[in-house]
Amino acid sequence: MLWQRAREPDVHRWSLPGGRLAATEDVETSIRRQLAEKVDVHKLSHVEQLSVFSAPHRVPDRRVVATAFLGLVPSDVDPEVPADTRWHPVEALPPTAFDHEQIVLAARDRLRAKLSYTNIGFALAPAEFTVSELRGIYSAALGYQVAPTNLQRVLTRRGALEPTGRTLPAGPAGGRPPALFRFTSRDLQVTDPFAVFRPPS
Amino acid sequence: MLWQRAREPDVHRWSLPGGRLAATEDVETSIRRQLAEKVDVHKLSHVEQLSVFSAPHRVPDRRVVATAFLGLVPSDVDPEVPADTRWHPVEALPPTAFDHEQIVLAARDRLRAKLSYTNIGFALAPAEFTVSELRGIYSAALGYQVAPTNLQRVLTRRGALEPTGRTLPAGPAGGRPPALFRFTSRDLQVTDPFAVFRPPS
Repeated sequence: MLWQRAREPDVHRWSLPGGRLAATEDVETSIRRQLAEKVDVHKLSHVEQLSVFSAPHRVPDRRVVATAFLGLVPSDVDPEVPADTRWHPVEALPPTAFDHEQIVLAARDRLRAKLSYTNIGFALAPAEFTVSELRGIYSAALGYQVAPTNLQRVLTRRGALEPTGRTLPAGPAGGRPPALFRFTSRDLQVTDPFAVFRPPS
Repeated sequence: MLWQRAREPDVHRWSLPGGRLAATEDVETSIRRQLAEKVDVHKLSHVEQLSVFSAPHRVPDRRVVATAFLGLVPSDVDPEVPADTRWHPVEALPPTAFDHEQIVLAARDRLRAKLSYTNIGFALAPAEFTVSELRGIYSAALGYQVAPTNLQRVLTRRGALEPTGRTLPAGPAGGRPPALFRFTSRDLQVTDPFAVFRPPS
């Protein structure tokens, strides 16, 4: 989600939402406030610090050190954003301000890595979903088509995914109605942490 | 590694090495410079940004936002440090300055998590080692005894560990001379990244 700058420097270029850290807040409080005030995004399914961007001349004419965050919203939420703000596909970014393209790509890489060793898919998925829907979400985030049976098997084996016991109505062509699944937790967890290194009990 | 503060605030308390970001450097350049200048540590086997610590009153009387780093040295390296500087076991920290205990514990948790899904052990181990030595390193870092055969099997299967083809001389009690191993890479890699999510080729 980027907004188009109305002023110099980098006028008309697209910029990540953010702003100045206030005296009474820490960086996470600050970014949540800025998202709410500036682009009207109030609910995030996951927020984590990404990295500090601190190259001396990343912003012209003054020193600005940025703490970048990765913030996610589920695929079924479409926040109403102001007129100067728009969602862009990561693989087709418009010209961005400052080093913001580098920040976006670092966030994408972080998300991709975490999809392989955490349950972070919960933050992208709706509360309930079919394996086919989940496959679409993982494929979009990873940038390649994921095999649905493999995805279901791996996430289930890691204890991240469970069936709700409900199904969607069968489609017009008949066939077995697709089962609905959910993530077992909506807090970030490293899946299978250390299990492989534990001594046999 | 902590140094004992000689001045207020928090005089005599133990502090992480660090200092002020200079106008011409980014945060990683800065922390490497401070480690070299202040505690004479020039070689780190791995350095990564940990997190920004930014609570408004973390340092009394002025606003200080800290970018904390995790820096590792191998177990066979023992840097000569100044008189006011000392290594401390994480589980027996002396009284620390400001929020530095919280930073140390966050670094420990990051290291423990990465031991389970990356090859980060390379940064703690000597260039060559026996499985028994490696087990000692992993056990110390994780805080519990790791089974050596399991450790060898898992790291080998992930492609992180390989035999050098050499052995240590047999001990005085005879028996098979222990084989020497090395990490296949000395750059941080997520082990088995995405492999589980790739469609069958």
